[in-house]
Amino acid sequence: MVPHLTTALTGPLLDLEKHILEAMPNIEHWLRTQWQDRTTPFYSSVDLRNSGFKLAPVDTNLFPGGFNNLNPDFLPLCVQAAMTAVEKICPDAQRFLLIPENHTRNMFYLQNVAGIQYILQQAGLTVRIGTLIPEITSPTDIELPDGRSLTLEPIKRVGNRLSLDGFEPCAILLNNDLSAGVPDILKNLEQPVIPPVHAGWATRHKSTHFAAYNYVADEFSKIVKIDPWLINPYFESCGKINFQERKGEDCLANYVDELLQNIGKKYQEYGIKEDPFVIVKADQGTYGMGIMTVKNADEVRSLNRKQRNKMSVVKEGQPVTEVIIQEGVYTFESINEAIAEPVVYMIDHFVVGGFYRVHTSRGKDENLNAPGMHFVPLAFDTTCSLPDRSANPDSAPNRFYTYGVVARLATLAAAIELERTDPLNAEASEESAPE
Amino acid sequence: MVPHLTTALTGPLLDLEKHILEAMPNIEHWLRTQWQDRTTPFYSSVDLRNSGFKLAPVDTNLFPGGFNNLNPDFLPLCVQAAMTAVEKICPDAQRFLLIPENHTRNMFYLQNVAGIQYILQQAGLTVRIGTLIPEITSPTDIELPDGRSLTLEPIKRVGNRLSLDGFEPCAILLNNDLSAGVPDILKNLEQPVIPPVHAGWATRHKSTHFAAYNYVADEFSKIVKIDPWLINPYFESCGKINFQERKGEDCLANYVDELLQNIGKKYQEYGIKEDPFVIVKADQGTYGMGIMTVKNADEVRSLNRKQRNKMSVVKEGQPVTEVIIQEGVYTFESINEAIAEPVVYMIDHFVVGGFYRVHTSRGKDENLNAPGMHFVPLAFDTTCSLPDRSANPDSAPNRFYTYGVVARLATLAAAIELERTDPLNAEASEESAPE
Repeated sequence: MVPHLTTALTGPLLDLEKHILEAMPNIEHWLRTQWQDRTTPFYSSVDLRNSGFKLAPVDTNLFPGGFNNLNPDFLPLCVQAAMTAVEKICPDAQRFLLIPENHTRNMFYLQNVAGIQYILQQAGLTVRIGTLIPEITSPTDIELPDGRSLTLEPIKRVGNRLSLDGFEPCAILLNNDLSAGVPDILKNLEQPVIPPVHAGWATRHKSTHFAAYNYVADEFSKIVKIDPWLINPYFESCGKINFQERKGEDCLANYVDELLQNIGKKYQEYGIKEDPFVIVKADQGTYGMGIMTVKNADEVRSLNRKQRNKMSVVKEGQPVTEVIIQEGVYTFESINEAIAEPVVYMIDHFVVGGFYRVHTSRGKDENLNAPGMHFVPLAFDTTCSLPDRSANPDSAPNRFYTYGVVARLATLAAAIELERTDPLNAEASEESAPE
Repeated sequence: MVPHLTTALTGPLLDLEKHILEAMPNIEHWLRTQWQDRTTPFYSSVDLRNSGFKLAPVDTNLFPGGFNNLNPDFLPLCVQAAMTAVEKICPDAQRFLLIPENHTRNMFYLQNVAGIQYILQQAGLTVRIGTLIPEITSPTDIELPDGRSLTLEPIKRVGNRLSLDGFEPCAILLNNDLSAGVPDILKNLEQPVIPPVHAGWATRHKSTHFAAYNYVADEFSKIVKIDPWLINPYFESCGKINFQERKGEDCLANYVDELLQNIGKKYQEYGIKEDPFVIVKADQGTYGMGIMTVKNADEVRSLNRKQRNKMSVVKEGQPVTEVIIQEGVYTFESINEAIAEPVVYMIDHFVVGGFYRVHTSRGKDENLNAPGMHFVPLAFDTTCSLPDRSANPDSAPNRFYTYGVVARLATLAAAIELERTDPLNAEASEESAPE
């Protein structure tokens, strides 16, 4: 079951898919050389938007939380990719300590944690789960709705090493995006921390990610001979924002205006009849908090108190002081009249599956990954690695291949981003990846 | 559909499977360190024999010819593994020249060639097929029964590089086991040849492979705490054999006797009621030619003319001058009362699938991979990478995991074997892998 595009204007996307299919050997070769030069994130998920005329990543998650939503048929792919990732990052490791988010009641999320544990166990690792929740002072079993169970254990720190009772891990795998900052217990560890702590939202900026993505999209577009705009949303960022005190409003309004104009020009060039819109969101943080859809600069000047409050904080109550203004990409995929947004999952640089967030009560220009938002996950039932060059560019295997390609570009951008922001490595990486 | 074991005596195998499941993290860790130190064959297939009391590899093929028999559901695994293999061996390669066996009418084999081409194309390579058949002087299309087609093209050599008309390959992938020797056109090439020509049967000896396997099986057995005999068939080898002139008969008969006695002791130790038997086969070459089943040393002294003729030559009419005498391992797997023998397929060190050779008219102590032998392939419908530690050690996912482990041991032995026999590298490898 594959969602279909509900827009009449699919010419540019068909053209994009055709170009990508034709350039496949060049794309794979180029990606191969890129992965050789980079440290690929251990795992990642990429939210895509497909408007029929444009296919672009809008968010790259380095602590993916939906492994439970993947098609179980593709678990062997996950296991094989995890084997490769472990071989590259820590071949000597036998025992992983997995540190998840501080959720104890979100069964969807906890099934994701169990899913990660399962994949790593099948790759031959011993994996136990340590929690940062201070109230958990002894091993705590949680029964999951799928019949499995999970044990959260309190973490001990001795010197610069973490352990659990009777368990000395070789490496720490984070599935916690550090929105509340890097807790002291994770600072200056001897054990490798995967992903590194600077991949957490305490340091990470969406604007840094999309700056790296600009570079990747431009390079890629030269190879495939396309307009990079087809895969890349415009963006700008404003620092020193305070929604409560109405500071930085001008910066925001001006950029909103500028982006809407630039998008408008592109829409005209491609004969797109829709209204341009932008998404204003916190430059750091996740979970769809601190996010709004804007079609006119006046909207950001006349925010009411409720809107200001909503924009002022993200997850863990962190204040929003910087925002990214990103071109909105319409979601024109739907299934049974519900909006469907693809999320692609990767382990190392391998696409291992994905799913659609399917939502019946939201609009095509809204964000589906919002708090309290109950999407229905629809696992990809087609792999992203078997394009069919004899079929229509828009057939399921080819559409999914294209999703996998664009998602890999976003993960490549994340690799570059993490190099650039690595406290140990900032200068060297700027040379190797000019913007 | 999984074949079942038809022997009452499955205690030792259950025990083996149990040990392997329990030691899984240690096994995977140990294998990971082994692959780090070795150059893994690009691809391989391993013939296993499962007697219920013993599970052992009896042949490791470095030019696997049955990719067409794999479960298509696992193609994404093949593609992902091929990506990894290419990244390791020749990341810069974009174009592969695939050189198959000189068959033009064996549609099963040609579908295998098309299968390899497809997998590599999906991994992002441009692959064309060059043939060593002198009669093919222009591109020749062959229609395959599955609707696909294949183009065989004549190979040109200019200086030390191979090419096809309008195609300059970066690397040469052999699916030709070089039974007739290394043709001049393949000697001293600038382009990487994968696998290296010394992996061909012109230089390869089964006895060298199984000497390396002795080492691997012993090391592995220490980790899993099992008797290495459970996964390792005894063997000996005789050089200077001439069946026509009845030379070397004593060596052969003595070893047959010795092996039968040693096997008999093991059978006694494990309470096995079957008759011990050995397989005498050419130390070089393949395709089940030059092979016989022996239960008594007298049998090799009283060969009739027909038997002598049969033992004297292997594929491509190569004379047999050396033989390996290998402990026979009963095949006690069957499906619908037909004998079923598993073959496990690997790309790089990843198990990507396998199939059973199912044969209705042969005995449990005979070789199913013989010329003119029409087995029915039954693809594994279970992956080898998702063992279920909560299930019976003998359940399908666990049995297939065990198959995958033993097959990987054989491929590891092949890696060591190729290091030892590498003309450039013989000394160094002997140090790193003592027998």
